[in-house]
Amino acid sequence: MRATVFYGPGDVRVEQAPDPRIEQPTDAIVRITHACICGSDLWPYRGVNAWKPGWRLGHEWIGVIEEVGPEVRTVKRGDRVLAPFSFSDGTCEFCHRGLHTSCLHGGGWGATNDGGQAEAIRAPLADGTLVAIPSGLRDDDPMLTSITLLTDVMATGHHAALAAQTRRGGVITVIGDGAVGLCGVLAARRLGAERIIAVGHHADRLALARRFGATDVVSGDHEQAAATVRELTRGGSESVLECVGNKSSMDLAFTIARAGGTVGFVGQPHGTEVVNIRRMFSDNVALRGGLAPVHAYIPELLPEVLAGTLDPSPVLDLTVDLDGVPAGYAAMDERRALKALVRI
Amino acid sequence: MRATVFYGPGDVRVEQAPDPRIEQPTDAIVRITHACICGSDLWPYRGVNAWKPGWRLGHEWIGVIEEVGPEVRTVKRGDRVLAPFSFSDGTCEFCHRGLHTSCLHGGGWGATNDGGQAEAIRAPLADGTLVAIPSGLRDDDPMLTSITLLTDVMATGHHAALAAQTRRGGVITVIGDGAVGLCGVLAARRLGAERIIAVGHHADRLALARRFGATDVVSGDHEQAAATVRELTRGGSESVLECVGNKSSMDLAFTIARAGGTVGFVGQPHGTEVVNIRRMFSDNVALRGGLAPVHAYIPELLPEVLAGTLDPSPVLDLTVDLDGVPAGYAAMDERRALKALVRI
Repeated sequence: MRATVFYGPGDVRVEQAPDPRIEQPTDAIVRITHACICGSDLWPYRGVNAWKPGWRLGHEWIGVIEEVGPEVRTVKRGDRVLAPFSFSDGTCEFCHRGLHTSCLHGGGWGATNDGGQAEAIRAPLADGTLVAIPSGLRDDDPMLTSITLLTDVMATGHHAALAAQTRRGGVITVIGDGAVGLCGVLAARRLGAERIIAVGHHADRLALARRFGATDVVSGDHEQAAATVRELTRGGSESVLECVGNKSSMDLAFTIARAGGTVGFVGQPHGTEVVNIRRMFSDNVALRGGLAPVHAYIPELLPEVLAGTLDPSPVLDLTVDLDGVPAGYAAMDERRALKALVRI
Repeated sequence: MRATVFYGPGDVRVEQAPDPRIEQPTDAIVRITHACICGSDLWPYRGVNAWKPGWRLGHEWIGVIEEVGPEVRTVKRGDRVLAPFSFSDGTCEFCHRGLHTSCLHGGGWGATNDGGQAEAIRAPLADGTLVAIPSGLRDDDPMLTSITLLTDVMATGHHAALAAQTRRGGVITVIGDGAVGLCGVLAARRLGAERIIAVGHHADRLALARRFGATDVVSGDHEQAAATVRELTRGGSESVLECVGNKSSMDLAFTIARAGGTVGFVGQPHGTEVVNIRRMFSDNVALRGGLAPVHAYIPELLPEVLAGTLDPSPVLDLTVDLDGVPAGYAAMDERRALKALVRI
């Protein structure tokens, strides 16, 4: 089969790789139909995360099961399934509590595990990880595009909104106009936020934020954005969704949070170790979030996607085939594309 | 009247000061009967916080009202009152939400305002700040000692326990065996925590932690303490009360927090700007807390103190009169005393 492999910063290649096979009795082999390139894939692509040549790429994917190990009970050959960006046993304390990302036996796709930007994948812990998508959809059904976004960015936006204690009728601000930030806007609207302020740097993406439910959009440098949000909210936002993960966005989050408010952070941290602890202390601003336990959110979000009431698919503005994956990385890296779908 | 004045690190003096007088129609003048020296008073005393000579000291006090301004409605001359460590108008958005420490017109005792380690004090915003203590108590009633602790440390321990999401039947760890940490143990027991692990460095204080409800006490260096708590809790504590405020205690808090758990921090931050953001992210460990909105907690805690079911007074192991305040600071600084009561 063919799979996407990391060679070095700016250098990802699609090449032949051994076909995956059942290694553990709890494994499944899945033929991948749809994958995405994630903003977080750009960290290694840009040389920010230390990755090794030969590591696999891709953690957002759906597909059809080709084979299951003898101990797999809940899914079977022929099932169309989606996979959260991390796998989990479904039986440990943390999975039971809905924190599948801290599963005692879990892990993530890519790197030394199989990646999702490939023709097929070995999925460990299939019962605890894979979620069957109701049948009747063909490979080319547009609905599958939206479902692919549940594997990470839509669920991550939802996690940010929950972490930030978004409440019905509340005032929230989303920092970041990437795919996760835009999904955060969708999630906040879905949770009933009354005022949703999107902060970003790209007019086209902020226009999409409006389409997704943002009531206000703000751009400009840190000080301008902070002043505008503080003015719009008369002193700060109750809930702030930090959907970038760098120092500048985290600093802005604490600046615009209202006293007693909460910053929900889901951007993979890069240089955000130093927080505004004095603001947190003097005004009881909380910081919560992290990796989204996608599996816990599927039962709530998937039916809405299937019903057509939740549709994050406009964040995808580029479609490539597997051979086009390197071009997809380049387009996202150069900000010519917001997010790329890989149709395999 | 006489008041405690900061002269420089290690140098606090009790000296003559102008009698306080009504300056605003919302002021009250209170004759102070009891005050405490707080662990946080040691920050300027030790030269860690930049304080200026001439600034007043003391933010934990109770007393009897001598005079009120013409607009004061809810308390009157002769009332015995307690004051949270910060004053607040009681009418702004934040006061209404129970976050009196972020009051739009509030402030704190001491520094350029009057301090509580004094014979009398001007209390601004008397209606929003002062809480009448049911009458019938004489100046020498031992109950007043416990009530004085509600002005800060007992309410702060309670805030830490709430911020850390202490739940009935839960497993919590308190870092710090100072007065706030010990009050955190009391608060956690009161909230129904099943297992309460106290981490500290002083055998006598940890013995008091046991008396207050700790089921386990842990001492030793960072690595020993972390390993012990992780073993006792089989992987980490759901709730961690960070009651010190330095880098070592904050680091320990993140190390011993369970995945999905919460660190509630109330120690005034000193060198804690760098948090373990990767642990927070990978395991969804939250950080919440800050200045305790004492006023919001009085209605719940005061009746229990009056009923004798909540008694933090054992944290006071030294009593001085006003002239003994400098000796009280020295005793606490040298760890000869845990916390000093000032009987005025």
